[in-house]
Amino acid sequence: MKIAFLGPEASFTQLAAIQLFPEEELIPQPNILDCFKAVEKGEVKKAVVPLENSIEGTVSMTLDYLYKTPGIKILAEAVMPIAHHLMVHPDSHSGSVKKIYSHPQALAQSFHFLDTHFKEVPKQDFSSTAAAARYVSENPDRNLAAVANQFAANLYGLKIIHHNIHDFEQNHTRFIIISKDPESYENENLRVLGEKSGLLVTLPEDHAGGLHQVLSVFAWRKMNLSKIESRTLKTGLGNYFFFINVVGKWESALHHNALEELKALHAETYFLGNYKEFGLES
Amino acid sequence: MKIAFLGPEASFTQLAAIQLFPEEELIPQPNILDCFKAVEKGEVKKAVVPLENSIEGTVSMTLDYLYKTPGIKILAEAVMPIAHHLMVHPDSHSGSVKKIYSHPQALAQSFHFLDTHFKEVPKQDFSSTAAAARYVSENPDRNLAAVANQFAANLYGLKIIHHNIHDFEQNHTRFIIISKDPESYENENLRVLGEKSGLLVTLPEDHAGGLHQVLSVFAWRKMNLSKIESRTLKTGLGNYFFFINVVGKWESALHHNALEELKALHAETYFLGNYKEFGLES
Repeated sequence: MKIAFLGPEASFTQLAAIQLFPEEELIPQPNILDCFKAVEKGEVKKAVVPLENSIEGTVSMTLDYLYKTPGIKILAEAVMPIAHHLMVHPDSHSGSVKKIYSHPQALAQSFHFLDTHFKEVPKQDFSSTAAAARYVSENPDRNLAAVANQFAANLYGLKIIHHNIHDFEQNHTRFIIISKDPESYENENLRVLGEKSGLLVTLPEDHAGGLHQVLSVFAWRKMNLSKIESRTLKTGLGNYFFFINVVGKWESALHHNALEELKALHAETYFLGNYKEFGLES
Repeated sequence: MKIAFLGPEASFTQLAAIQLFPEEELIPQPNILDCFKAVEKGEVKKAVVPLENSIEGTVSMTLDYLYKTPGIKILAEAVMPIAHHLMVHPDSHSGSVKKIYSHPQALAQSFHFLDTHFKEVPKQDFSSTAAAARYVSENPDRNLAAVANQFAANLYGLKIIHHNIHDFEQNHTRFIIISKDPESYENENLRVLGEKSGLLVTLPEDHAGGLHQVLSVFAWRKMNLSKIESRTLKTGLGNYFFFINVVGKWESALHHNALEELKALHAETYFLGNYKEFGLES
């Protein structure tokens, strides 16, 4: 089975994808749009894309393409702690690092470490942490270093000289598996952190309290929301759709009635699926 | 007066910053964190950072640093249509483009044009559209092209061979001006699109209907919300804060009472400011 993911090779999304689909053929895509297109055209069965906090793609694009791609479903969510390591070519010495390459956000997330230990060493932006690691591997005689993940170190044969140089302990990225088929995703090897449903809701008009009215549908039923994000519709400024996560299993008449009630309120609602949240290793 | 902005030179954020601060000294920063730090340390008076839809920075970082930076205020919001152009060195010929460089999201946003007119030409990711433009300007004899903005074309002396190659007409990026001083920002040369307030709200606990209760405070007062975004607190998964925009001027006892009522609900609320939204040119 072919699975698309937001590349390049050794991106954090690939690190997620190999844990979610260890047996499948993983196909890198240059951007989030191409991941959705590959699913839409049937070139792949599923795709893994970042939903939140990624340093390798504007994840608001994920929300927009969820809205724009007809019939797309979410099969699972996965959360991964982000760990950055400083790596060099095995022939280099850590004391002699001349330049440090990485994605600008990875450099920012490792600021305290780099400022303390490599203050005078120039930093250079790269389009991804993985591309930076590859560049370092291709230039063994220049004493370069990259800030990237464990997987990139393995893939490009680099030696990690400092582990876990990122500033915040609790830095996570969320990914989702998207598909045209509303099948369920299960994986016995991964921890299940919870269960939730995803909905896209468009308000009938931009009126005061419209969102409040929509949320009332969930509130009086004691359905907990774990995420809500408003996105501007491309039809113009001032019109919005909302991505909403409802906690728990979507099973009872209560849930069915909630959707009916949203319809009665003229809130256009698209159900993305009820799915599990899995924990990944970094 | 010194103003920081998310660089590099000729980024979309600089294009916003020169319209917002045509007379001031603009200082590029490598990432969003450094923009906030420069303001916090007093190295600059203000900073311009992307709030929504940027291709040059994970804008969820802007929300996180608004939350994490003590005493930060928003002075203004600005919205700019995103326009991508295809540009070459003036000594090149459009028919002979050998390779096209840009930020992966800019390449994605120009997919239809590039796929129709330059299908066989390889595309190469760069860390920013501006860096791609500079690279093209530094390699005049290799028949390269970049997808970047008008400002980058001017700065690096490139010739635009195709204007407005982006796929969607209504592609906008939002920026905010941040400062430690809660002064007002005015600019007679820019269109005023509206007025709004920004608030950060942390719920007392992750209970069903908590957000609904908070939104009730605004709803029964007929205060319209134009944006709501939930962000995970770094203290762990499952705890959230919300960035909320309330439409209109923040002036009456009604608004004051709303904040009092949020306090009574044990919703920790930080008022980022009441500010105007301006329209920029691309």
